[in-house]
Amino acid sequence: MSWEKNVRKVVPYVPGEQPDKKTMIKLNTNECPYPPAPGVVKAIQEFDADCLRLYPNPSAQQLVDALAAYYQVSADQVFVGVGSDDVLAMAFMTFFNSKKPILFPDITYSFYDVWADLFRIPYKRKALDDTFHIRKEDYFEENGGIIFPNPNAPTGIMESMELIVEILEKNKESVVIIDEAYVDFGGKSALGLVEQYENLLVVQTFSKSRSMAGLRIGFAIGSAKLIQYLNDAKFSFNSYTMNQPSLYLGVESVKDDLYFKETIQKVIRTRERVKEEMKQLGFSFTDSVSNFIFATHPLFSAREIQAELRKHDIYVRRFDLPRIDNYLRISIGTEEEMNTFLLRVAEFMKSVK
Amino acid sequence: MSWEKNVRKVVPYVPGEQPDKKTMIKLNTNECPYPPAPGVVKAIQEFDADCLRLYPNPSAQQLVDALAAYYQVSADQVFVGVGSDDVLAMAFMTFFNSKKPILFPDITYSFYDVWADLFRIPYKRKALDDTFHIRKEDYFEENGGIIFPNPNAPTGIMESMELIVEILEKNKESVVIIDEAYVDFGGKSALGLVEQYENLLVVQTFSKSRSMAGLRIGFAIGSAKLIQYLNDAKFSFNSYTMNQPSLYLGVESVKDDLYFKETIQKVIRTRERVKEEMKQLGFSFTDSVSNFIFATHPLFSAREIQAELRKHDIYVRRFDLPRIDNYLRISIGTEEEMNTFLLRVAEFMKSVK
Repeated sequence: MSWEKNVRKVVPYVPGEQPDKKTMIKLNTNECPYPPAPGVVKAIQEFDADCLRLYPNPSAQQLVDALAAYYQVSADQVFVGVGSDDVLAMAFMTFFNSKKPILFPDITYSFYDVWADLFRIPYKRKALDDTFHIRKEDYFEENGGIIFPNPNAPTGIMESMELIVEILEKNKESVVIIDEAYVDFGGKSALGLVEQYENLLVVQTFSKSRSMAGLRIGFAIGSAKLIQYLNDAKFSFNSYTMNQPSLYLGVESVKDDLYFKETIQKVIRTRERVKEEMKQLGFSFTDSVSNFIFATHPLFSAREIQAELRKHDIYVRRFDLPRIDNYLRISIGTEEEMNTFLLRVAEFMKSVK
Repeated sequence: MSWEKNVRKVVPYVPGEQPDKKTMIKLNTNECPYPPAPGVVKAIQEFDADCLRLYPNPSAQQLVDALAAYYQVSADQVFVGVGSDDVLAMAFMTFFNSKKPILFPDITYSFYDVWADLFRIPYKRKALDDTFHIRKEDYFEENGGIIFPNPNAPTGIMESMELIVEILEKNKESVVIIDEAYVDFGGKSALGLVEQYENLLVVQTFSKSRSMAGLRIGFAIGSAKLIQYLNDAKFSFNSYTMNQPSLYLGVESVKDDLYFKETIQKVIRTRERVKEEMKQLGFSFTDSVSNFIFATHPLFSAREIQAELRKHDIYVRRFDLPRIDNYLRISIGTEEEMNTFLLRVAEFMKSVK
């Protein structure tokens, strides 16, 4: 039909599998195995349903203020969105408007090239080195913008602040976005650099370390100028993106710093313990400082381990991509879930030998 | 600074005022004065906070299914988003990619030109006639797409199905979007035409008739082909737009059809009663079939009435635009709120005489 000729056609992005079984062990989308903070649970019970009839605050002011206070920046340096995907999509649309290509790693968050395609942004993938680290020199050439996750996904590997500073020093003409979705699990944030670099945007999320993937809250912190541009675009797209539950419950989450830090420590302890046990089973893995382990085995293919685990309703993620197709990305679940995971893997290995 | 040269610069859209006072009478943003359905209130009380740690269903399947059943279409004909603004923004981005201008009325929802500017879509505004009705012939010329609200905002005026069919018949090469944000208050929906016209997209919202502006739910119904294109773009923008509370509470709202219809009838009754009383006060108004009255007075300026009401914490909307700058758009509140509104207006008129 002829009306179709004016349609923006995109290769549809297929989100990761979201199985929904009562008994499953879900280690495939990096969710937190622990519930949101007790204050969040209480706030739901006390939630005044009548407020749903009113539009939320368009600036999401209460949540912006809570984040500004927590991260010790001013409110005009904070932008919030419907998950960090919304924040990143808005940032791509707002900041990457050059005819020069934007740069990101070849192994990275799988959404970057999708947004670039959607917004018709040219891009170049820069190959990570053999240890899956960024080669900083790759980011010294002319470009229309730079983005990479730190720690990287799905490797979990952290780049140093020195590398980030060097990249920023060589790129004063581009917006540089550091996607810190996983930074809370032992990484180091670039937030301390936003005062110095007006073109640095740091993006984080409530989906992992704050146990709120289901509420959809992401945020960006940067110079007031960057945030102003982002807000101008956001207000021209949808004035009211954050609904009343997100605003109320998001604030409650930020308030409870003790629970936040305890939850993170629990995940880190489990991660390090599971790494030890996986080493015993013959796995090798990257030095992940995230809430997942990115592992490979010299004798068993990632594909067969994944298929075997699936038979037991244990879901882990594998990416059918060059260089990493023999790796599994295993989210850190509860101690009990990880024990079952380890047991099933060990049993499988024994049965095949 | 030079990084700014690649920024997408837009004239920031300024959303309507959202005052937040306990005692105010808020008749400026067309919210519903009644709470959401009892089932929604109950669902909040019983909401399992633990589900917040998990990503929501990316296809918003439970809500899509509920809407498909309610409107008797198949699930692949339904698209949901974060308010109808999100749905419309996504539709502009997806469907209006021609170099030919899209067409919409000169007096209409104030976001259309904002989205067109954001996405660099050329557009032409077509002047409504002297009675604020669409001149159908204006939409027979070559175009890159057509959009108008029905009933129109901020006039509340309904165009006939015959006019819509004629416009559709002449525009098989464009996507035609009918924005039905206000249709539930006595209007007639074009939903019955989607089977016949593959290029017709009908957009509605939970913000007005379902008392859920604060939850941010909008939806579109059209041919499976249109919805597929919308979903492809949406999944390339943000896989998880609808959070867990929106999905759960949205479904509960759709379930309670009796409450939905009673609420609408209450608003309509109040609207018609207030129209009568405003006529006595000398106002004239359009034949609004929406949840607002669009009124003007021969002796008192809209600006002065608005200012006077504001002194009493009563908020109504005025648009500083050609032809309608002497009109007030007054949302329908509770009976009691409207009595106070009428009383203050009458007192003001007496005091000035």
